[in-house]
Amino acid sequence: MVVAGVGSGTLLQLHEHEDWETDQKPESTTQTTDAPPRFRVSEISKHDRHAAEKWVVCGAKVYNITDFIEAHPGGEVILRACGGSIDPYWNIFTIHKKPEVKEILDQYEIGTVSPEDLNSDGLVDWSSLGLENHVQDPFSQDPIRDERLIVHTAKPCNAETPADLLTSFITPIKHFFVRNHLWVPQIDPDQHSVTFEFADGEESTVSLSDMKANFEPCTVTATLQCSGNRRKHMSNSPNGKTSGLQWDIGAMSTANFTGVRLCDVLKEAGYEDSKTETDQHIHFTAPGDTYSVSIPLSQALSPTSDVLLAYEMNGEALTPDHGGPLRALVPGFTAARSVKWLGRITISDEESAGQYQRRDYKCFPSSIKSASEVCAEDWDKLQSIQETPVQSAITSISKQADQIHLKGFAFSGGGRAITRIDVSNDGGNTWKQAEIQDNDAKGSKRWAWTLWTKTFPNPCSSSDADSKAEYVVRAVDDSYNTQPENFDCIWNFRGLLANAWHRLTV
Amino acid sequence: MVVAGVGSGTLLQLHEHEDWETDQKPESTTQTTDAPPRFRVSEISKHDRHAAEKWVVCGAKVYNITDFIEAHPGGEVILRACGGSIDPYWNIFTIHKKPEVKEILDQYEIGTVSPEDLNSDGLVDWSSLGLENHVQDPFSQDPIRDERLIVHTAKPCNAETPADLLTSFITPIKHFFVRNHLWVPQIDPDQHSVTFEFADGEESTVSLSDMKANFEPCTVTATLQCSGNRRKHMSNSPNGKTSGLQWDIGAMSTANFTGVRLCDVLKEAGYEDSKTETDQHIHFTAPGDTYSVSIPLSQALSPTSDVLLAYEMNGEALTPDHGGPLRALVPGFTAARSVKWLGRITISDEESAGQYQRRDYKCFPSSIKSASEVCAEDWDKLQSIQETPVQSAITSISKQADQIHLKGFAFSGGGRAITRIDVSNDGGNTWKQAEIQDNDAKGSKRWAWTLWTKTFPNPCSSSDADSKAEYVVRAVDDSYNTQPENFDCIWNFRGLLANAWHRLTV
Repeated sequence: MVVAGVGSGTLLQLHEHEDWETDQKPESTTQTTDAPPRFRVSEISKHDRHAAEKWVVCGAKVYNITDFIEAHPGGEVILRACGGSIDPYWNIFTIHKKPEVKEILDQYEIGTVSPEDLNSDGLVDWSSLGLENHVQDPFSQDPIRDERLIVHTAKPCNAETPADLLTSFITPIKHFFVRNHLWVPQIDPDQHSVTFEFADGEESTVSLSDMKANFEPCTVTATLQCSGNRRKHMSNSPNGKTSGLQWDIGAMSTANFTGVRLCDVLKEAGYEDSKTETDQHIHFTAPGDTYSVSIPLSQALSPTSDVLLAYEMNGEALTPDHGGPLRALVPGFTAARSVKWLGRITISDEESAGQYQRRDYKCFPSSIKSASEVCAEDWDKLQSIQETPVQSAITSISKQADQIHLKGFAFSGGGRAITRIDVSNDGGNTWKQAEIQDNDAKGSKRWAWTLWTKTFPNPCSSSDADSKAEYVVRAVDDSYNTQPENFDCIWNFRGLLANAWHRLTV
Repeated sequence: MVVAGVGSGTLLQLHEHEDWETDQKPESTTQTTDAPPRFRVSEISKHDRHAAEKWVVCGAKVYNITDFIEAHPGGEVILRACGGSIDPYWNIFTIHKKPEVKEILDQYEIGTVSPEDLNSDGLVDWSSLGLENHVQDPFSQDPIRDERLIVHTAKPCNAETPADLLTSFITPIKHFFVRNHLWVPQIDPDQHSVTFEFADGEESTVSLSDMKANFEPCTVTATLQCSGNRRKHMSNSPNGKTSGLQWDIGAMSTANFTGVRLCDVLKEAGYEDSKTETDQHIHFTAPGDTYSVSIPLSQALSPTSDVLLAYEMNGEALTPDHGGPLRALVPGFTAARSVKWLGRITISDEESAGQYQRRDYKCFPSSIKSASEVCAEDWDKLQSIQETPVQSAITSISKQADQIHLKGFAFSGGGRAITRIDVSNDGGNTWKQAEIQDNDAKGSKRWAWTLWTKTFPNPCSSSDADSKAEYVVRAVDDSYNTQPENFDCIWNFRGLLANAWHRLTV
């Protein structure tokens, strides 16, 4: 029988089950011992979100996922499926349709659905049993997005800004890339508040209205970049495919975010500096615990780190797609820390225990090809991505008579300014410094990208009409950090922080 | 006649000179017009440090260096040579003995020494004329250094820590690398004070005794690294030799520095926050203006940047060789900003105008092969090195029975912690995470290196006694900055910030 990964508490529960008892035959009867326990649908349906033991059905197999719920990257959303079939949810959340996810589920297998409850296809026909899963599409209220965005997945929406729209310093809201893990929650701004939970267990609540009324507003020009930006380029490198959405250069946009400084609100909410111990963390959590991550508390407290509770974007109320009515803004950090639909802020001695903090956003050396090769100790050794390394890309190449005009961006995390941008028109043999465009970025440090231009002679104006030119960009930040020449040395199985030189052939 | 680079003021002065008048013959007499003006030694000797026009002799040529003095990288030391021959000084400061320096001097040539004052070798015999240059060796009082240091130049002393002494977390004072531009000044700690000069021209002075008596002492564990560390490795790369001292891995050491916080002393000295404009700079200057550089004022004012006025090193009074009685300590920045023998602190709207700020410490792309290829605009575009990028090295490889034990360091600027150290025993094909050693580094951020160890099987324990193994190290900091795989993409003609993977073959 398959009970791998099921704890002792679950085993006790299983012993009370009728079919399990049936299974307790002498071991000599090999065939019967190996047969998985069979469960009737009437029994399965009792193990719903309200039961102590929570089961789901996938295909015709039954899984006790009680012990997994806390580890579910999507939070408590998984409870919706308990007592029924998980398949319709995976049809919505298609991100689950990959072998790694099935492998995790398989650890919790406890048996199969009794043949009496299966249809001719070998699947559970819930409707005929009067136990139909009333799956409501939670994405039905998602906003309609601009058709120019390049959609990687529709539900949840993951859509990047096309390269030619990355040429304006401030990205219009409708063109700002969208990176959602779930549907867009509908939150009434007038009713919204944030609960603060301190390390000593004390709690307090500050409403969004109070924030707007009682604190000095602050505007910061920040570039947000998904940790997986340019993953497509890493996947196309010799080490091969990486796992995740295959973003091009557009999982990255820039806006003016307005809100209140988190350090100000923390004080008002009851936080006292004297309570601070070193190495504390501050967690940002979306409603329903669907998403929770953390940053070092020192980052939130530093007056020059510009961490905001943001309610406006480019001068307008923050739209639901971008975290409205309230999101965290952690400039200079990977966008995953700027939690949308912020509902709870927790100060803790430990970083967030969630998937997006402890697992998803860590880069292993290229000799490790999948998560299964990594031991727990090595996971723990590595730090989660917070500040990001130097990045650059070419966003536009246009010809005009005998000239080629290049445009692009360069950016570094941690508030580090871009100080040099090299562009090559011969595949990287020779380099020229690009012209840096003026801008009026706001903030204590350099949180926004730097746009650049460079003009070269048009090689096609020569007699050789077939001539090709490979254009390359690489940038240097004010700590003289550089981008790697190629993906060999930074390749990681999750395809994160793909910041090798960007090459385009014309 | 050769008067290139000499301003109009100088020309006026020249017109008053007898030999110059001799030169004002009709242009038709080509031979005479081209003959350089000749000066008697009695005349030259009047143009000493006290004269309006300051001349030096190099070989048998005469130079009016009045306009150059302010730009002299070594500050006013050059005045010592005025009115006489510069050669004996260049014999002491051997750093001048290179074509680039001679090229600069050539711009100021105004004529030759009259033949009457030259000996049979065609050189000025100052002694026979009773005008001997009384050149006293300014290095005569330099301290005697530990014989284990690897000396690159003796005068000024530039000596690195040998690799096997880089394996202790705190470097003993006597083994701490020495990077001096001049001789070690002898300064009485009891008489020493720092003059503060604010942007509005106000000045005030704080004595070292006052600092010690009136401010909270602070200890910071900081790694100092010369911008040229590992230049030797860059010079050995395909792009070829770079200019400067050919340091191996030891222009880098770590100590506990104790002093007072600059931000505290600034307030006491009369600095008011309200006077601050953005983008101001704070200059650190050694006595006699021999060395002056700057950092952003915001860095000095931030309480977590730990910028110190340091008077102790590893618990002892700061030795003269390391800047005693008082030096700046700017942790996380290249060591060039931690000015020794600190005498003056200036707040200014501009960064320091000196050579070590505006010229020496900038990295151009590898396609630029010398300073002469760089136009002034491109120099200005580039930022001077301040915070440094991620670095690592192998400091020790030892065999023990069937194992190979590696030790090394990894470090990043800006207070960024090292979060992953990869070590390879097969030239970089496969990588293992190294073990990070515990330590008790002090400071608001991570200002000290991280020591690591890694054990591999001994390849020589196999039957093949000739087998070679190439060991490689590379590190990742907490912003996921990485080191370049090789020097191709970071090569710069000055050989700065050589932080490619470190390789050793055994």
